[in-house]
Amino acid sequence: MEDKAQIQEAIKVQGEVVRKLKSEKANKQQIDEEVAKLLELKAQLGDDGKHQFVLKTAKGTRDYNPKQMAIREKVFNTIIHCFKRHGAETIDTPVFELKETLTGKYGEDSKLIYDLKDQGGELLSLRYDLTVPFARYLAMNKITNIKRYHIAKVYRRDNPAMTRGRYREFYQCDFDIAGQYDAMIPDAECLKIVHEILSELNLGDFCIKVNDRRILDGMFAVCGVPDDKFRTICSTVDKLDKMSWEDVKKEMVNEKGLSEVVADQIGEYVSMQGGMDLAERLLQDQKMSQSKQACAGLSDIRLLFSYLQLFQVTDKVVFDLSLARGLDYYTGIIYEAVLTQAGVDPVSTDTQNGTPGEENVSVGSVAGGGRYDGLVGMFDPKGRKVPCVGVSIGIERIFSIMEQKAEASAEKVRTTEVQVMVASAQKNLLEERLKLVTELWNAGIKAEVMYKKNPKLLSQLQHCEESGIPLVAILGEQELKDGVVKLRVVATREEADISRADLIGEIRRRTRQA
Amino acid sequence: MEDKAQIQEAIKVQGEVVRKLKSEKANKQQIDEEVAKLLELKAQLGDDGKHQFVLKTAKGTRDYNPKQMAIREKVFNTIIHCFKRHGAETIDTPVFELKETLTGKYGEDSKLIYDLKDQGGELLSLRYDLTVPFARYLAMNKITNIKRYHIAKVYRRDNPAMTRGRYREFYQCDFDIAGQYDAMIPDAECLKIVHEILSELNLGDFCIKVNDRRILDGMFAVCGVPDDKFRTICSTVDKLDKMSWEDVKKEMVNEKGLSEVVADQIGEYVSMQGGMDLAERLLQDQKMSQSKQACAGLSDIRLLFSYLQLFQVTDKVVFDLSLARGLDYYTGIIYEAVLTQAGVDPVSTDTQNGTPGEENVSVGSVAGGGRYDGLVGMFDPKGRKVPCVGVSIGIERIFSIMEQKAEASAEKVRTTEVQVMVASAQKNLLEERLKLVTELWNAGIKAEVMYKKNPKLLSQLQHCEESGIPLVAILGEQELKDGVVKLRVVATREEADISRADLIGEIRRRTRQA
Repeated sequence: MEDKAQIQEAIKVQGEVVRKLKSEKANKQQIDEEVAKLLELKAQLGDDGKHQFVLKTAKGTRDYNPKQMAIREKVFNTIIHCFKRHGAETIDTPVFELKETLTGKYGEDSKLIYDLKDQGGELLSLRYDLTVPFARYLAMNKITNIKRYHIAKVYRRDNPAMTRGRYREFYQCDFDIAGQYDAMIPDAECLKIVHEILSELNLGDFCIKVNDRRILDGMFAVCGVPDDKFRTICSTVDKLDKMSWEDVKKEMVNEKGLSEVVADQIGEYVSMQGGMDLAERLLQDQKMSQSKQACAGLSDIRLLFSYLQLFQVTDKVVFDLSLARGLDYYTGIIYEAVLTQAGVDPVSTDTQNGTPGEENVSVGSVAGGGRYDGLVGMFDPKGRKVPCVGVSIGIERIFSIMEQKAEASAEKVRTTEVQVMVASAQKNLLEERLKLVTELWNAGIKAEVMYKKNPKLLSQLQHCEESGIPLVAILGEQELKDGVVKLRVVATREEADISRADLIGEIRRRTRQA
Repeated sequence: MEDKAQIQEAIKVQGEVVRKLKSEKANKQQIDEEVAKLLELKAQLGDDGKHQFVLKTAKGTRDYNPKQMAIREKVFNTIIHCFKRHGAETIDTPVFELKETLTGKYGEDSKLIYDLKDQGGELLSLRYDLTVPFARYLAMNKITNIKRYHIAKVYRRDNPAMTRGRYREFYQCDFDIAGQYDAMIPDAECLKIVHEILSELNLGDFCIKVNDRRILDGMFAVCGVPDDKFRTICSTVDKLDKMSWEDVKKEMVNEKGLSEVVADQIGEYVSMQGGMDLAERLLQDQKMSQSKQACAGLSDIRLLFSYLQLFQVTDKVVFDLSLARGLDYYTGIIYEAVLTQAGVDPVSTDTQNGTPGEENVSVGSVAGGGRYDGLVGMFDPKGRKVPCVGVSIGIERIFSIMEQKAEASAEKVRTTEVQVMVASAQKNLLEERLKLVTELWNAGIKAEVMYKKNPKLLSQLQHCEESGIPLVAILGEQELKDGVVKLRVVATREEADISRADLIGEIRRRTRQA
């Protein structure tokens, strides 16, 4: 195939051209043109289906291997069980939405949305989160109350640090309560759920910070921040978990144009942390009490804490005025859970790229959410609002931690649930093995047989050791004559002859706990 | 906002222009240009995030509501349980792959692949099936044997008849065995799995057709089909489940250029159905036995049936020479399961668009698969082959059938698993309700409470009736004084006072079967 070789040569040359332009930091248009030529050449090759493929997954994505899947299943089971305990239903939505459904929902982050190619028909984008599709679903089906969870992948064209367990394709795991209810009861249940899940997953100590958008806005107002700067100052405050106050202040003054005095007043408030007492104190605060918005938020925080006491979760909840959260659509209470034990911090794996000691500051957020009473109304033709509050579990970070734990632990992660391997000690027993394994399958026993006519007993036993299968049912000429099976415990190597009639019962009995 | 109104008016006008051109069947370029203008206008509006959205999901996709999800969960559980019983692990791959990974794998169907927009970086496409990503995964990780299942959504820009339960986004549910094993043992297990799943799901009677690519190719050869027409004739034969032999023959002769004699000889073979006996007869067939390929395939079919006997599934398996299956990558045995009971046929819902009586012919395929020994080698730099055989469960069709069954049945599909509702008979008992529901949650009981300060008892009971909650724990002044809870059975309205200490045990006891 001369053609193919020629194209490959051309690709090589063109690749050099692109690299050179990039290293020279040539202008973008020029680079783009040369990259387009390169892709064109590659596409020519691609069509014959025979060239050597680039063996990789798309940037920012990954496969899950069986071990990762076993861990993922365990985590999902814990979380789903909790959602179900709280009476949630589940829904699913398509992976892509009409582009306009997502437009205007994510502020600056909209640039991170993946668009599909226009192949004729509608303009589509991959979902960026599960909240906007949920709101679209509610409006489209005129649903005014529902308690639902949704676990699915979302897509962001980010440049994530993958060592931190962040990807372009990642799971979100959302629980939301939609409906017109009495204040703070569903909000408190969301926090109860976070508390239950993080406790059950055994991730170490954690803290759930709460605040309220109205308190932030009220605070900005009484400190003298101009109205049109609320959102941008809010996003600067949001950086306090990663930056020191000094740096945050610098950004407020130098980049966002606040006066030192205003910034310092904000600084005083955002250093405050407490519980119901702090909410009460701020309701009396001379400045704060001038803002109706802030007072509404503070009263709700006070009410929230009274419910949290009944739910027995105040030990982990802190009212923290520095909590801001980026997303535009929040209208009331907001919260975020962080792990406070450095030992299991997934962020610490790449501290070589950070400031020494930084890991104490940027402990990972593992859940977050808040109230968004306006989002569904954006989709309703008549603007009818459906108040919503929800929480998103930071499942990818939790996976990373669980994987690290599994790595560190002596216990092997099993990737199958096979209870028994049907093996033979001699040759020519394939038929007998297949008959027996059929009996077991038909009785609902999880069983395996090697796909060889005459496998060695040793290799059959080795497979059990490797994949953690607890029992082996061994057939031989003698066993067949006697109407028994030799049942071997892999861990202890104990063997016992069990009659064929008793075998299924015996396997069930021995693997009940497993 | 004058601007907005102006744009909306412009959209209206432009929409009329497009509609008019379409109704006049104007040339495509002209329509495309006007559509582009319309989209441009809509995009202008989209950016302010306030205009009225088109409230729909993308063409060919759908949301799953809680009831559909409950059915889906049940079906998945049955299938996953079967896969696990056979010792399968599971993996997951990203929803998009490098475009070139998919190129050259699907023949003509490649035009149905969804591409992502080039936003800088790699060229990406949504996965078209789970088999090609599986092969890419094996080659990339140098895995030479694995038994895995993968349940995930795939994407095809088809124009499916959605009344037939076909979509552009749909689930696939694949089980595959990769590895160099003795002939037909893993192949037979795939058929055993199909048999188990279709039996357990209780979809009515079914039939699993088997054939072999080598038998088809050998048959074409001995009938005198030119080598370069094997694939195209194969895809014509594949239409026999939807078209009569007369129409298939017409296509072979008129469109594909076969002679009548050759077509008739094919016609004779493809009308044959049987079991092991047919394989043996064809091995003696004067014509067929001239093809080495056909003989290899026929011997394997014979061997397969001997294993299927041991697996006790021959009652549903038929060797059918008309089975062809479209995909390019099959190299050996192929199979397809069809439901044979008209009553549950999802296709029959839109017979108004088909020929009368057609539903008896096009009974839906609900599982299919085969052996593809060459696919992994296409990804390996050195072309190393990993033999594979697998089956894909036609889960969307199964969902449709199960939904129809649920619709027809008197039994209500529950969308939550709540065991007990914590209710109050009087006012001002919110705190007591929250305390009690916390006790229940902490004990692992699935419980709910209404998010109102003072809900009416009637509305609390109604909620239980509607969502199938079996028990209500009712609190009142008297109950609190006595340290008891009134436990009410929703179905029978029986009530009994249970002491607080016994409540959790009592709820567990009463909902054990539920």
